Amino acid sequence: MMTIQKLDKQRGEEVRQYHQTLTKPQGSLGRLEELAVQLAEITGQVFPAVTPPGVIVFAADHGCTSEGVSAYPKEVTAQMVTNFLSGGAAINVLSRSIGAALKIVDIGVAADIDGIELSTRKIKRGTNNFCVEDAMTREEAIEALNIGREETEMMIRHDAIKCLITGEMGIGNTTSSSAIMAVLSGKPIETITGPGTGIDTEKIKHKQQVIKKAIRLRSPDPDDPIDVLAKIGGLEIGGMAGAMLAAAAHRIPILVDGFISTVAATLAERISPGAADYMIIGHLSTEPGHDLVIQMLGKMPLLDLGMRLGEGSGAALAFPLLEAATNILSGMATFDSAGVTNKE
Amino acid sequence: MMTIQKLDKQRGEEVRQYHQTLTKPQGSLGRLEELAVQLAEITGQVFPAVTPPGVIVFAADHGCTSEGVSAYPKEVTAQMVTNFLSGGAAINVLSRSIGAALKIVDIGVAADIDGIELSTRKIKRGTNNFCVEDAMTREEAIEALNIGREETEMMIRHDAIKCLITGEMGIGNTTSSSAIMAVLSGKPIETITGPGTGIDTEKIKHKQQVIKKAIRLRSPDPDDPIDVLAKIGGLEIGGMAGAMLAAAAHRIPILVDGFISTVAATLAERISPGAADYMIIGHLSTEPGHDLVIQMLGKMPLLDLGMRLGEGSGAALAFPLLEAATNILSGMATFDSAGVTNKE
Repeated sequence: MMTIQKLDKQRGEEVRQYHQTLTKPQGSLGRLEELAVQLAEITGQVFPAVTPPGVIVFAADHGCTSEGVSAYPKEVTAQMVTNFLSGGAAINVLSRSIGAALKIVDIGVAADIDGIELSTRKIKRGTNNFCVEDAMTREEAIEALNIGREETEMMIRHDAIKCLITGEMGIGNTTSSSAIMAVLSGKPIETITGPGTGIDTEKIKHKQQVIKKAIRLRSPDPDDPIDVLAKIGGLEIGGMAGAMLAAAAHRIPILVDGFISTVAATLAERISPGAADYMIIGHLSTEPGHDLVIQMLGKMPLLDLGMRLGEGSGAALAFPLLEAATNILSGMATFDSAGVTNKE
Repeated sequence: MMTIQKLDKQRGEEVRQYHQTLTKPQGSLGRLEELAVQLAEITGQVFPAVTPPGVIVFAADHGCTSEGVSAYPKEVTAQMVTNFLSGGAAINVLSRSIGAALKIVDIGVAADIDGIELSTRKIKRGTNNFCVEDAMTREEAIEALNIGREETEMMIRHDAIKCLITGEMGIGNTTSSSAIMAVLSGKPIETITGPGTGIDTEKIKHKQQVIKKAIRLRSPDPDDPIDVLAKIGGLEIGGMAGAMLAAAAHRIPILVDGFISTVAATLAERISPGAADYMIIGHLSTEPGHDLVIQMLGKMPLLDLGMRLGEGSGAALAFPLLEAATNILSGMATFDSAGVTNKE
């Protein structure tokens, strides 16, 4: 889809060496030091910058909500988009806290939403019910990826963002994400599917049955990520995957949020191997499949705070850690410059 | 020492209820919601504030360094204080990142240090070697607590700080902290003592022998925290404990750093039971005794990033989580105000 370059290992090694000259016991900043190295490899800069960050939230509806898989009615997707536009959702608060540019993209909400701040890129009014037919056509899946890429490239140009955070809103999207993960991982659906926004054990069993049925009827090809996205995915999941591919192509670090975002990240990696090199997992969600999908990407989350909100919230919360990692690198004195005696 | 009030459980309950009205699935912000409740209980405010934070770093030397327990020579304590004053240490960078007031207190460095920004409150030029005699007298231990309290109260008055972070610098202070923890917990020294700033396995064994010898010879009374502080403690550890007691008395949340800070927190709690109610543990250090001391306080750390630097760095890094918790509370819309349908 887009050319993704290899990481700049040379720059990473330079940062690793430089870190040993800073006035602290070697390695004593743990993950912050590893983050600095990774950010250098991603950006190709010895002193990488991550500010300003950009948060892009894709919203879309899911046909599978008619199967009764969610704790909230489908209308909440559009209502929450309106809430995003008036600044009252968690991702608004957390974006303000980190000084992020925030963009909301309607990529497939099943209602008309007004708002001058909204990017209206509706592909269709929600996916089809994947228990009945494919969630979308292959062309629509590719369009979702392209819209994600285009909207991100606009943000890179207009807001000069130096770190990408993707978020989502879509009642029903843990169902779609669980289905995607079951197909991509080959693991039993019981180890992946969870309460989403908050259904009980009985309803989780029903959700698992719905997912099993959808996978059996749609039989997506696990080796063709776009087929998986089209048959059992979501429009906002495609948008996020496309956004991540654009950021990776521009050597911009991607701070990944929870379960749904990480599933989109996995699709992006399957579409363009190497994309995951540009990703950092912001937090571990309580949604049971998140741990598995993080492991599949070979990653470790930064935070583990029992969150499961989505919207990009866990990634936005983790952003100050990236900022701190870059500030440490550019702001600390060396043993030589400060006249501090190094280890005996 | 100082009167510490009970937590305001009523305010906490109001925040717990209010959180359920905000536009997100109930409980979906996990620890951030618990933090909001705890901050309300601490401050007695429904919309608690934590900005600006204040970082106070106590520096002192340790007589036990002559036993060869540390990776760095003793002179590094004074050199690092100079580095703090010129802004080049990790805690300087991280304090700037979070907009914190930063104060450095020389409470017992074994060298003369100039600096208009330095609070010179030297009790003595480092503790005595606790393998030979008590680290300090009981009067000196009480003075350390008082200086910590006074310096913190000045910060509360002058800088109007709304959250206290304590940090320390003192070559040899993981040795002293391990000794304190062994006495307070009754656990074997082998489960507590670690590499500190970076000694090898052989030297850790030596450090453990030194600590065992000191505890045997000094035999501090585990039921008298000031006796423990005097006989095997450190001046900066006493300063931190006093600082925490002052913050608790003023209902200011305390964000605790790593192993040494948490040992000081434990002393503070033993001196004035209830002080720990005002504490939040910023991160889990890799120093092996940290996990134990956190458990003894009945707490859970916010971050776990493999850090072991001290200076208050892990707490400063965790501060944006507290800020986010308060921003969420004051900045999010309710289901009613945003016109979003709540859970079915």
